[in-house]
Amino acid sequence: MSDDWIAVDWGTSHLRAWAMTGPEIRASAHSDDGMGRLSPEAFEPALLALVEAWLRPDGATPVVACGMVGARQGWVEAPYRAVPCAPAGGNGMIRALVHDDRLDVRIIPGLSQASPADVMRGEETQIAGFVAANPDFDGILCLPGTHTKWAHISAKEIVSFRTFMSGEIFALIAGQSVLRHSVTTDGFDDDAFLEAVSESLSRPESFAARAFCLRAGSLLDGLAAETARARLSGWLIGMELAAARAYWLGQPVVLIGAPALSGLYAKALQAQGLTPVTADGDAMTLAGLAAAHLGV
Amino acid sequence: MSDDWIAVDWGTSHLRAWAMTGPEIRASAHSDDGMGRLSPEAFEPALLALVEAWLRPDGATPVVACGMVGARQGWVEAPYRAVPCAPAGGNGMIRALVHDDRLDVRIIPGLSQASPADVMRGEETQIAGFVAANPDFDGILCLPGTHTKWAHISAKEIVSFRTFMSGEIFALIAGQSVLRHSVTTDGFDDDAFLEAVSESLSRPESFAARAFCLRAGSLLDGLAAETARARLSGWLIGMELAAARAYWLGQPVVLIGAPALSGLYAKALQAQGLTPVTADGDAMTLAGLAAAHLGV
Repeated sequence: MSDDWIAVDWGTSHLRAWAMTGPEIRASAHSDDGMGRLSPEAFEPALLALVEAWLRPDGATPVVACGMVGARQGWVEAPYRAVPCAPAGGNGMIRALVHDDRLDVRIIPGLSQASPADVMRGEETQIAGFVAANPDFDGILCLPGTHTKWAHISAKEIVSFRTFMSGEIFALIAGQSVLRHSVTTDGFDDDAFLEAVSESLSRPESFAARAFCLRAGSLLDGLAAETARARLSGWLIGMELAAARAYWLGQPVVLIGAPALSGLYAKALQAQGLTPVTADGDAMTLAGLAAAHLGV
Repeated sequence: MSDDWIAVDWGTSHLRAWAMTGPEIRASAHSDDGMGRLSPEAFEPALLALVEAWLRPDGATPVVACGMVGARQGWVEAPYRAVPCAPAGGNGMIRALVHDDRLDVRIIPGLSQASPADVMRGEETQIAGFVAANPDFDGILCLPGTHTKWAHISAKEIVSFRTFMSGEIFALIAGQSVLRHSVTTDGFDDDAFLEAVSESLSRPESFAARAFCLRAGSLLDGLAAETARARLSGWLIGMELAAARAYWLGQPVVLIGAPALSGLYAKALQAQGLTPVTADGDAMTLAGLAAAHLGV
């Protein structure tokens, strides 16, 4: 149909696509062909492998993509737009050069901030999806993830934002440090998590010593792995909340991301007296891609 | 000779041995047969491969070892001694079972602390070496490394200690995180380091956000890798100094470790108005092993 198009979320380690008709999803597909493993000439074949069945019978099918696909090492660089600005909304999209004329690919640019120096790629589309549905929102969006973003939204614009590496630091310490044997578990101790958030809000500087305490506790006292894992997470999120206080204190906060991690941030913020709302990260991505394509 | 013996520093990733006559070094050798790659039955062959030429022509040669060789996963577990106590001095050494009766192997136990839960293995021997040479010292020893130790020494005893994982966190972030491309260099910017120490002492909670700033700075502003690396190091050491303030404030501080890393801690402490003294880590290890063997 003439209003068929394709929405694409193309990150470092994943490629996800949706067959769309206007704002409606017809089908979805995903592969491991993330930007991190593709050379520039491999993007078009990777996309075709996933979406060829969805292409219009004649003419070019519009494809709108967000994420690391637009990084310097991606398919084509979509230069950062500087905040304050609207999160996405179709401004500054860059066309990728394609060999197959059934494709018309545009990439949403990431956002940058001069001071403190900061960047995002992909989250701006989730933010655009939220803002499209909530044009009057004035407050804070928090996007928990490997690199959690805190963004101040006002008058449909991103005023400022700040990225925290807490998630990546957690993964490195839990997976590869001397603590890896002390925190290996699927379990999680909610009380220990909240206590750790509170400890870290009070004395964030002690993180590197507290972390080693987990190793000593498991050697000396048989500290349970679910307690150790929850404390490690709580100290990192607590440290982040201490630094991001200027963002969330006294503000409406909406959490956008995967449910498990967003749930931890929600618990931590509730313990500080906030009542954060949560929104699904995937749904916001798709809404943002639709807003960019449909201009709504 | 009848006062020949062998000193051994046996860590997770290294095995170093010295042929000694009383307090004098006759020879030294090292291999990669660290505790981390050896099963229990592999310790004796690994030791013999390094020291067989040094054994006395008749009778057993005393071997005194420190480090992870005495961990639960090591040759034989040398149970932790609880502080407050003398750092080593021959108390509680554990004999390893050997098949070759030319060896008489004893292992120096590590130390533990109940609250905050903490442990050390190997550093107690360096501390013993320092205390043997400085019996009247009352103050703080800082042993920079992968897991930096701060120890309060009084009346020849370790009163308390605290371990910081700052070194391991630095290595993980610099080597494996999204920052790895931003900090790869042999260079180091001393001014950026000291500025970062100061920033982190003031606002330690911002570490995870500052770290991402290095990535953004290198993308947006071409931030030099030696500046980025120095800042990452300075923020971690500054955070550690903020948490360890109760140890060092107004105290004499001696740094024991490898010269490069000890030099960074020295610079950071000097900027806080201290005049730390440095002692070589390897020399202190050997002095501690000698003190344990010779009972001095």
